[in-house]
Amino acid sequence: MKRELQETGIRAREASRTLPRLSQDRKNEVLKACADALEREAPYILAENALDMEKGRENGMNEGLLDRLELTPSRVTAMADGLRHVATLADPIGEVTGMTKRPNGLLIGKKRVPLGVVGMIYEARPNVTCDAFALCFKTSNAVILKGGSDAIKSNIAIVRVLRDVLREQGIDENALQLIEDTSRETAAEFMQMRDYLDVLIPRGGSGLIRAVVENSKVPVIETGTGNCHIFVDESADLRMARDIVINAKTQRIGVCNACESLVVHERIAPEFLPLIGEALKDYGVEIRGDARCRALIKDAVPATEDDWGREYLALIISVRTVSSLDEAIEHINRYSTGHSESIITNDYSNAQRFLDEIDSAAVYVNASTRFTDGGEFGFGAEIGISTQKLHARGPMGLEALTTTKYVIYGSGQVRP
Amino acid sequence: MKRELQETGIRAREASRTLPRLSQDRKNEVLKACADALEREAPYILAENALDMEKGRENGMNEGLLDRLELTPSRVTAMADGLRHVATLADPIGEVTGMTKRPNGLLIGKKRVPLGVVGMIYEARPNVTCDAFALCFKTSNAVILKGGSDAIKSNIAIVRVLRDVLREQGIDENALQLIEDTSRETAAEFMQMRDYLDVLIPRGGSGLIRAVVENSKVPVIETGTGNCHIFVDESADLRMARDIVINAKTQRIGVCNACESLVVHERIAPEFLPLIGEALKDYGVEIRGDARCRALIKDAVPATEDDWGREYLALIISVRTVSSLDEAIEHINRYSTGHSESIITNDYSNAQRFLDEIDSAAVYVNASTRFTDGGEFGFGAEIGISTQKLHARGPMGLEALTTTKYVIYGSGQVRP
Repeated sequence: MKRELQETGIRAREASRTLPRLSQDRKNEVLKACADALEREAPYILAENALDMEKGRENGMNEGLLDRLELTPSRVTAMADGLRHVATLADPIGEVTGMTKRPNGLLIGKKRVPLGVVGMIYEARPNVTCDAFALCFKTSNAVILKGGSDAIKSNIAIVRVLRDVLREQGIDENALQLIEDTSRETAAEFMQMRDYLDVLIPRGGSGLIRAVVENSKVPVIETGTGNCHIFVDESADLRMARDIVINAKTQRIGVCNACESLVVHERIAPEFLPLIGEALKDYGVEIRGDARCRALIKDAVPATEDDWGREYLALIISVRTVSSLDEAIEHINRYSTGHSESIITNDYSNAQRFLDEIDSAAVYVNASTRFTDGGEFGFGAEIGISTQKLHARGPMGLEALTTTKYVIYGSGQVRP
Repeated sequence: MKRELQETGIRAREASRTLPRLSQDRKNEVLKACADALEREAPYILAENALDMEKGRENGMNEGLLDRLELTPSRVTAMADGLRHVATLADPIGEVTGMTKRPNGLLIGKKRVPLGVVGMIYEARPNVTCDAFALCFKTSNAVILKGGSDAIKSNIAIVRVLRDVLREQGIDENALQLIEDTSRETAAEFMQMRDYLDVLIPRGGSGLIRAVVENSKVPVIETGTGNCHIFVDESADLRMARDIVINAKTQRIGVCNACESLVVHERIAPEFLPLIGEALKDYGVEIRGDARCRALIKDAVPATEDDWGREYLALIISVRTVSSLDEAIEHINRYSTGHSESIITNDYSNAQRFLDEIDSAAVYVNASTRFTDGGEFGFGAEIGISTQKLHARGPMGLEALTTTKYVIYGSGQVRP
């Protein structure tokens, strides 16, 4: 491993030893000081960002990516406000739960503690730099960031401003480090740093996430792609079903909790499919359906096997008819990415069975899948939405950046 | 991937869909029927085990391994009693916590659910076959077992008996599958079965565990090696310190929660080291110490850098003197494997700082490290002791074989 990377790891580990000593009040003061510094140093940050933008334009970066990369005075203020918001959240660190006295007098409890050193790999958006620092610092974790080359000057500027505040505040500035070498080889080595990183969190497109999951030797929290389904059961209130499907498909299309596939009970299909077909058409949504769907919605095009597994992130929806709840559950569990699924029904047993048997992070009755979100769930902040089953599943709040340890108070006990 | 392995994975996934439907009562009945069958079929199991033993002797297997491999009528009864004990434990599956009503009327709760399909890789002990099934079945997980070649006939026999019961009881027998091909290539492929396994748990020596952690593409729960430390602070009750060190070092030497390293405050060293040196000598423990230790214990031999990081699992202990609590904490955090550490002290602040700053799964004040154990912690059953930070840390009970999902009850909510 490159010596520089190793030294970054050692410095992060050292910083991580000191952060748990900071009180909640102290951490919040520092976060607010960081917010003020970002606003004060906005001209410097914007100038560096302008250089990234210039290079991006030269390299023919598309408008969508340029928009993600661009910082404006109001976006810098939004980053600062993000830091101030994190300062208002409850700090999960230090809570002790389940403390019990054992028959031998040992008092055993489970204490919430930081993970230690968090690694983040992400792409073009420079605001992630600031967000990741805020969430890690609030939970007393050191963080090593590996951003994309497109945003490197912006990231260096933001990190410099934040580290200056840490130093002024008498805190080990290595609580936040940025890997300035954006080469692929360095990224590959970063994923091998098992001795220095306690967890690695990729944030970005599905290609980045897959690469990290497949190559990392560090434990990864996979955040995710969402091929989300809505099942319209035969007892559904059809207007409710229509409103929910339209909301979940069209309210915002590029997000992981948008609906990508509609599953309809065949007994309700003759009534529901023409209704939803009309509504989807009004919103410009392309329908890719099975034969029964196409018989009832004339604009629908044939769905291929590939469609059932697709996360379109576009104005497209796949539609499948089924002859039973069992078939719906089987279809969804087979093709879903385990993110969010919803049943629209008025049948008590079917609602309960759907909640029980669908194997996804968030399972709904009679609501839009678009609610799968840390803010909507009331967590205050969101690090991402986990579609894996270990450690954290679904929207992740600050707690996902923590672990526990057992603390045991004795008075000389030995094991007989 | 070999088609056979893939088919095993598909069958396990199918079985895992049906297991969550079983009630707690039903699962307990099945576990008891399995226990009865094991005892009834003991002659068959013992005959197959005798063949493994014969082969082991032919291959020159050492006495320790032969002892682990051997089944006797009382060991079969112990396996059966293990199943009956698991039947008495509370089933964590289905519990819903933190259910709250959001401002928009959505009722959101977190429900405890099975992981799905658990993979286990383990070595010679055939009782693991039965234990692993019991814990996985109790938590409604399907399990795929990959035991060692030394115990293959015993494992096949045990699995056959258990699967026969499942079939008789009308349960998908693929809730339990054993990979009968014990080749290294198959083990290597098993670790790549990310699409079929939700988690992989290695049980065995540190070599096996390291190989799985380094090669698995499936998320692993690392169970652990323990280089456990006891720090004797200057304010320690020296007789308590002596009794705890002797207990932690000698009560059972081959276990991960045994003490491997003693750290002593220099101000107490002149009084404590001769005392503990004498006591350790009585138990036949070899002392490998730093210079100050050797000046006070004449039988001590020099400790090398390598000794600080060693898990001896033998009658050997390393001894280091330090000039402060800070130095003790730094030394322990540097060399520990993150399993269990204890401070012997009568100083309130030092006790609290040790609990806060030592980065291990279990941190003690004034007690033996030997208590880090699912049974001693009151969990009823133990799958292993995790020394990693994600998902589970410390002794793992049934809950470590579960995950959660969000269940959301709506009444037509859409996202504005």
